[in-house]
Amino acid sequence: MLKKTLKITVKIYTLEITVENIRIRCVYFSLKYLGLLLSLMDIRKDQIQKDTENLTTSSMKLLNENLKLLEEDHLYHIALSNVQDNLRELFGDVKFVCFGGQSTRMEKFASFISHELGLDASGPPKNYAGNTDRYAVYKAGPVLSVSHGIGIPSLSIIFQEIVKLVYYAGCHGVTFFRIGTSGGLGLEPGTVVVSERVVNGALEPFYKMVVLGKTVDRPAVVDETLVQELIDCRLNTDTFKTVKGTTLCADDFYEGQGRIDGAFCEHFDDEKFQWLRSLQENGVTNMEMESLGFIAMCHRANIKGAVCCVTLLDRFEGDGLTTNRKLLSEWQTYPQILVSRYIKQKLAETVNENS
Amino acid sequence: MLKKTLKITVKIYTLEITVENIRIRCVYFSLKYLGLLLSLMDIRKDQIQKDTENLTTSSMKLLNENLKLLEEDHLYHIALSNVQDNLRELFGDVKFVCFGGQSTRMEKFASFISHELGLDASGPPKNYAGNTDRYAVYKAGPVLSVSHGIGIPSLSIIFQEIVKLVYYAGCHGVTFFRIGTSGGLGLEPGTVVVSERVVNGALEPFYKMVVLGKTVDRPAVVDETLVQELIDCRLNTDTFKTVKGTTLCADDFYEGQGRIDGAFCEHFDDEKFQWLRSLQENGVTNMEMESLGFIAMCHRANIKGAVCCVTLLDRFEGDGLTTNRKLLSEWQTYPQILVSRYIKQKLAETVNENS
Repeated sequence: MLKKTLKITVKIYTLEITVENIRIRCVYFSLKYLGLLLSLMDIRKDQIQKDTENLTTSSMKLLNENLKLLEEDHLYHIALSNVQDNLRELFGDVKFVCFGGQSTRMEKFASFISHELGLDASGPPKNYAGNTDRYAVYKAGPVLSVSHGIGIPSLSIIFQEIVKLVYYAGCHGVTFFRIGTSGGLGLEPGTVVVSERVVNGALEPFYKMVVLGKTVDRPAVVDETLVQELIDCRLNTDTFKTVKGTTLCADDFYEGQGRIDGAFCEHFDDEKFQWLRSLQENGVTNMEMESLGFIAMCHRANIKGAVCCVTLLDRFEGDGLTTNRKLLSEWQTYPQILVSRYIKQKLAETVNENS
Repeated sequence: MLKKTLKITVKIYTLEITVENIRIRCVYFSLKYLGLLLSLMDIRKDQIQKDTENLTTSSMKLLNENLKLLEEDHLYHIALSNVQDNLRELFGDVKFVCFGGQSTRMEKFASFISHELGLDASGPPKNYAGNTDRYAVYKAGPVLSVSHGIGIPSLSIIFQEIVKLVYYAGCHGVTFFRIGTSGGLGLEPGTVVVSERVVNGALEPFYKMVVLGKTVDRPAVVDETLVQELIDCRLNTDTFKTVKGTTLCADDFYEGQGRIDGAFCEHFDDEKFQWLRSLQENGVTNMEMESLGFIAMCHRANIKGAVCCVTLLDRFEGDGLTTNRKLLSEWQTYPQILVSRYIKQKLAETVNENS
């Protein structure tokens, strides 16, 4: 690794020498020489010191050593930078990151959790990714509320940029949640499913990627303790049901979930029902489009994470979402309520431990 | 097919008889009986007649016969309906649909093409999908400007709902474009690539899906005539270059495109460069995340379609997008300019043919 790094550094130094490029990379070439350059070129030493702190004191494990070679990390899709923005000051207190598909839903969740935590929140939550419209990032005290769009490819970008963000911010012991929507199998619509297993369309618990032309499987290993802790947040007084289940993660909303009402379809209702029944026999309780990537990336990043989705329909009853939007919106608050209880409980435990 | 349908109809009739459910499905049970039901239940006959017209007179080919069985098609992710909204009146004149990732970019494109076509556009363009924030749908005369989010799964939903929309609207001879951004290989940043071939991460020209548990390959066949027509829209006075090329479509922005600056990475710079060189030797000019699904779905839907993306960086020079946002925004107008020339040219030809 060092040999490779040295090679790159020399190339940069001899060919692309600029103030921006030298700062970090030269650490690997010659620390003494870097010191000379810094004083000659009036580079802010305090910023470098802070970056170095970020790279060494965070409890988040650095999964990609290459990041140490970057003079600056532009978190492009959320329009934030580890040099131009003071990520430690902005996000250093984050303990929970809640992801969901839509930006407006995650804005509402930020307001909701802010109220639940008794935070002083006047006006709408600030979108820290406001310089782009690809994703939205809201913050309510120790909770980030982040939109991920639709599908694993969209999720994978924001997931990685948020992992880097909490890493640069020096966060400790962060837990991730996906709070989303899904189609249910044999469940009353409005039921919350906490995923105890996540699988792809072929019922395999792997997130398949192609890296440098080769297919690799990333195991989607669920955190069983976190699943049980979420289940334990149920209350007898709840107006909605919460269950554990297996979640099928599809790469398409229509054919990929066996629907017959997309623009394309080459199968009939009876084939669909046969498939849905076979899924149910295999323990599948709901279907959505991100859980597999989410759980696999949490596992790989060594971050505690869980998926908690409400079912918006029972697929044995139909394919289309025909329930009125007001009721659908109400159902979408159910997983938020469950996760907010978990967050409040954990924060209360921390306060008790420290008192 | 008729036998299957009959079976379903009887089930619906006997078990779920409501005004909403009967209307279309009973056509397959008994037309005479349907007439009686319609008069008894005061269902709007004119709406049914209009729906039927939509299903029979559109020049768009119906790819999914199941749609004929729906009493109403909720295009859920754009919050439009073929019954509650008059799609024919709203969208019947659409000839071109331009897709791109971000909603703000597509709003700007709607304003731009509106100006280019000399349309009377006061104020910002209307978002017809304004009742949801999953996608945005703007219209400028015969041009729809639609956001698709990031990645094929996100694209596949909006693509199918737009195909159904233009079908229900009775549109004729619609052409689709994806106008987006990409990472280039050995091209000057700001170069426009019109995809003459699209491949996945393993260099195969197939969009792989899992349907009812089985993997199926959808061939991504490019419309060579349309590609050449777009290339012919180049002008000698252009400040940007436009080239044909092979586009690699990845399911991830970081590892999936060989980047070493994501949260995860298990390869080094020299392996990345080796891979990039091998791609270049295979004719790959740029990488993005939607082209394969887009071209495969256009081909399957028998819709003329092309992908036209600007390169925002040369991957041989780096992984991060470090160019300032103003310049990046300017580059993103280049494929829009090219496609707008094509649209103006085709509309002028139509006017000439009709005069």
